[in-house]
Amino acid sequence: MERLRTGILVFDNVEVLDFAGPFEVFSRTRTVPGTDSRRTYDSAPFDVFTVAATRAPVRATGDLEVVRRHGFADAPHIDLLVVPGGFGTRALLADAPMLDWLRATAAKADLVTSVCTGALLYAKAGLLAGKRATTHWASLDLLASLDPTITVERGARFVEDGVVTSAGVSAGIDMAFRIVERVCGREVAEETARYIEYRRS
Amino acid sequence: MERLRTGILVFDNVEVLDFAGPFEVFSRTRTVPGTDSRRTYDSAPFDVFTVAATRAPVRATGDLEVVRRHGFADAPHIDLLVVPGGFGTRALLADAPMLDWLRATAAKADLVTSVCTGALLYAKAGLLAGKRATTHWASLDLLASLDPTITVERGARFVEDGVVTSAGVSAGIDMAFRIVERVCGREVAEETARYIEYRRS
Repeated sequence: MERLRTGILVFDNVEVLDFAGPFEVFSRTRTVPGTDSRRTYDSAPFDVFTVAATRAPVRATGDLEVVRRHGFADAPHIDLLVVPGGFGTRALLADAPMLDWLRATAAKADLVTSVCTGALLYAKAGLLAGKRATTHWASLDLLASLDPTITVERGARFVEDGVVTSAGVSAGIDMAFRIVERVCGREVAEETARYIEYRRS
Repeated sequence: MERLRTGILVFDNVEVLDFAGPFEVFSRTRTVPGTDSRRTYDSAPFDVFTVAATRAPVRATGDLEVVRRHGFADAPHIDLLVVPGGFGTRALLADAPMLDWLRATAAKADLVTSVCTGALLYAKAGLLAGKRATTHWASLDLLASLDPTITVERGARFVEDGVVTSAGVSAGIDMAFRIVERVCGREVAEETARYIEYRRS
């Protein structure tokens, strides 16, 4: 099976559940149902890894330290890009190399997604121009101000308009299951939700 | 404010969302509502940290690497203990020093909780003797077999009987919010759920 290379961006002050939710969903999805299939990668449709700009462990919100798998230079081609949010996104809005990397990586990816305020980075990078999008409820106005051509959707759990953006934090889990559904079908998404005992919105 | 020292155990092949869900909930809880209060620890009722037996980064399910904050020897007193699950629990069932640490730590903690198959470790350590408890749906029979005096509750999202055990993976988020409710009241739990846009079961 050709697995979808799924790169999840991490950075200092990334919100824990923003990256851990999609990491859980994509890394535990199996096309073969049950618990035994989860013991190997044989029927895993997603090859999930973290990517960061820096080599040092990333300090997520609440001081959870994560060692990223790949740097920007050595990361494999990314088919599915996940950009989580968190207070750390604010500093990245002025980080030109990061925005360049996002533009270049998104241009080559099949699926471009964000969780929470990860959408702010896409907006700043020009990737949401003319599109419908959403973000954490407290950042909806900021999203609109970063690019007035964005149609900001208030109250949506996630929005699919080329780029897939989600609402805050835990909404990233629902966004991830929607991607599983698109890639693997509804049955695989439902079975994986049952495996992690998640009640999809 | 005296913060509740919240130790979350991590180990190789711990399930990502099992520890990341409660980490998110406890570390983002604030007694002062809103987004600004989340930028500092001023109104944080929980001081959340990871604990592991080994110094090397822990390799969670899907190969997410986490650097633990404390080892067993240097960990501060733990008021609230969280034991997540995952396939890694199976090896720990035969790990006498781990079971000893669980018994000693649980004996001194105010709140003893587990997510998913973390309950298996408590059962093996004798901490669920005569109690009602639950675990991931695929491990309910294993839980019962580890200690026949446990009343295994099937279908519960979490069970409170001295020790608080939860069902699989994402149920740990609901368990964590229940603890927030017990410690800080319903309003704080609801406001924190709204902050991370989680729909409590």
